[in-house]
Amino acid sequence: MDQQQLFIKMALTAWEQSVTRTDKLFNELSDEQLAAEVAPGRNSGIYLLGHLTAVSDYLFTLFGIGERLYPQLEEVFLKNADKSGLPKPSVTELRAYWKAVNDKLSPALAAITEDSWFERHTAVTPEDFIKEPQRNKLNVLLNRTNHQEYHRGQIKFLS
Amino acid sequence: MDQQQLFIKMALTAWEQSVTRTDKLFNELSDEQLAAEVAPGRNSGIYLLGHLTAVSDYLFTLFGIGERLYPQLEEVFLKNADKSGLPKPSVTELRAYWKAVNDKLSPALAAITEDSWFERHTAVTPEDFIKEPQRNKLNVLLNRTNHQEYHRGQIKFLS
Repeated sequence: MDQQQLFIKMALTAWEQSVTRTDKLFNELSDEQLAAEVAPGRNSGIYLLGHLTAVSDYLFTLFGIGERLYPQLEEVFLKNADKSGLPKPSVTELRAYWKAVNDKLSPALAAITEDSWFERHTAVTPEDFIKEPQRNKLNVLLNRTNHQEYHRGQIKFLS
Repeated sequence: MDQQQLFIKMALTAWEQSVTRTDKLFNELSDEQLAAEVAPGRNSGIYLLGHLTAVSDYLFTLFGIGERLYPQLEEVFLKNADKSGLPKPSVTELRAYWKAVNDKLSPALAAITEDSWFERHTAVTPEDFIKEPQRNKLNVLLNRTNHQEYHRGQIKFLS
């Protein structure tokens, strides 16, 4: 295994480990627990479930590896806060969305070629990418792993 | 910049970004805010300040890049939980420790050579490293970044 393969493996392993831990946590929580705020006055577990699902779903677009499964989540869980008053899918639906996104995403990430991981993601222009070559897909994956862990630390308070 | 340099830069940038954000958060919180539990019945801000300081301090040992500054933190903030009853340093002392560790760690990380990042860390035996070459220093840095973000998401509730 050369070093390029090794870093891709490291970054993918860190992502999948975070998904596994987050999934385990969601599965341990009842619907009632998820309906509560993770701390007084903060986001509900349901909102964070929808938020993390929407962020992961958006990776299909950002990496150019397929269509998002649930584009309707963007308005409620990315562009707006928990108390927006916008109607949310049920927790049963959101659990199914979370599972479907990860079931599709995991093999799609594994299928990205070595060279493609170091190419720009779709939110960077070719001009900017020449100046900032670290703005590649693998860097997005590192940042998304950190983002998911940030919220997992919060969701943990529901257990 | 070759891909090896690029990946090291990505991992170091993610770490430093997490340190900067965590530091900003600690600085925004008063001593009284830090004394509170981040959520009912959970760790206090003071414990998490000590915990993150101890974890970062331990990187000197793990990477073989120097002596820890505050080995005494291990017992209170790594081996024991918040409610252990063990005496803790004052919040003023802990803030100073957090700053001193990061002030020393940041240039020490920047000075690690490219090849050294892909070498085993001191908690892996040479035999295990042959079988699991991803257990290198850079992988530890990725995991520590995730760990810090996990707790930053919790500390955020004090603000």
